[in-house]
Amino acid sequence: MISVLIIGNGNVATHLYKAFLKADNIKITKIKSRNIVDIPSAAITIIAVSDDAIAAVSAKVNNSFVVHTSGASSLNTLKNKSNKGVFYMLQSFSKGKKVDFSKIPFCLEATNENDYKLLENLAKTIGKKVYHISSEQRKKIHVAAVFVNNFTNHLYKIGQDICEENQIPFEILQPLIQETAVKIKTVAPKNSQTGPAIRKDEKTIKNHLEILNTQQQDIYKILTASIQDTLK
Amino acid sequence: MISVLIIGNGNVATHLYKAFLKADNIKITKIKSRNIVDIPSAAITIIAVSDDAIAAVSAKVNNSFVVHTSGASSLNTLKNKSNKGVFYMLQSFSKGKKVDFSKIPFCLEATNENDYKLLENLAKTIGKKVYHISSEQRKKIHVAAVFVNNFTNHLYKIGQDICEENQIPFEILQPLIQETAVKIKTVAPKNSQTGPAIRKDEKTIKNHLEILNTQQQDIYKILTASIQDTLK
Repeated sequence: MISVLIIGNGNVATHLYKAFLKADNIKITKIKSRNIVDIPSAAITIIAVSDDAIAAVSAKVNNSFVVHTSGASSLNTLKNKSNKGVFYMLQSFSKGKKVDFSKIPFCLEATNENDYKLLENLAKTIGKKVYHISSEQRKKIHVAAVFVNNFTNHLYKIGQDICEENQIPFEILQPLIQETAVKIKTVAPKNSQTGPAIRKDEKTIKNHLEILNTQQQDIYKILTASIQDTLK
Repeated sequence: MISVLIIGNGNVATHLYKAFLKADNIKITKIKSRNIVDIPSAAITIIAVSDDAIAAVSAKVNNSFVVHTSGASSLNTLKNKSNKGVFYMLQSFSKGKKVDFSKIPFCLEATNENDYKLLENLAKTIGKKVYHISSEQRKKIHVAAVFVNNFTNHLYKIGQDICEENQIPFEILQPLIQETAVKIKTVAPKNSQTGPAIRKDEKTIKNHLEILNTQQQDIYKILTASIQDTLK
């Protein structure tokens, strides 16, 4: 039995609490960060608060092993005086949307091997995919996630804008969007680039630029140039 | 029974030919564009050749109704003297990869109502999703597809680069990529933007820029600015 305390009240804290409630061999407690005056003891304390609050909240925790769940913060953001670690789940959590923890990559870090093993055991009570990731690597994963999640979603949004401006239902793009994402399971994206940029089809590129607004043109040009640079 | 002739030998021609072979009430023939001297007659002639070859190939066809399959070409690219139309499938076709035509949007256009009905009947022998799309709308769909397919794949490639440079397996990003694509089935991308750009989290943005190369920085900056413009 591992005793776990979650501090926080956001999407990560809520989904994680629900998952641990159903897990075997976990004794789970959850408190809001404003109730930090009275902290239950636990083998693992998980601080799932906003990045800016991690230092202040962790400084008030006297439990033996304290971890945060942030992709953007290093292990040393934690200011507790005991052992430290990171329990970062690489997925976007939405309120009310069910989470399949078996598919989520757990990126774990700890300052000693025993603590790492403990985190690994904890992750495996709810998940399947566990990775040993350093603070330096996690920083890189976090920025890569911005490209494949935040920026990709913005490209979808531009697709939606173009459709709506031309009385085309956005649903028409959805099979292509799904296919583009599914394809990378079998072919690496660097080996599956298609379209006018990689073909250097200047006529089509010119036609496309003519029907875009200035901001869309700027994005189109910079991504086309970046795709063509891979040919060098 | 509809008689159909496909001219072409690429991925679209090949996949379409296989699908029509299995369809009910279709008499299908296929020739390569270089065999254009001896053209079988057919109720619908589908020219599935590269964009640049559509005009020259169509000029040699005397059948009553000729269509092309290009997203980037207008109906008037066809130079046959009889009726014209477009039979554009909005999906990326790869050699050797099975195609599920029931999920593919068929974007159809014809110069008269009877021809349109004929194309619609043809599409429904192999597909389910049929859209009446003008040449002007198809141009817009084609550029939107570049954003959600070609450019999105390039963002995946940047994610892959960042992972590989830091000894992180690219598979770690795949659940997030799938989730990002699946999410738009239920929430419009303009309503589901997350991340440092939309939060105006300047500290994280600065940290991210510091660990990117110049080209990645330029892409990061322009997409961040475009996301933040949606707040205005």
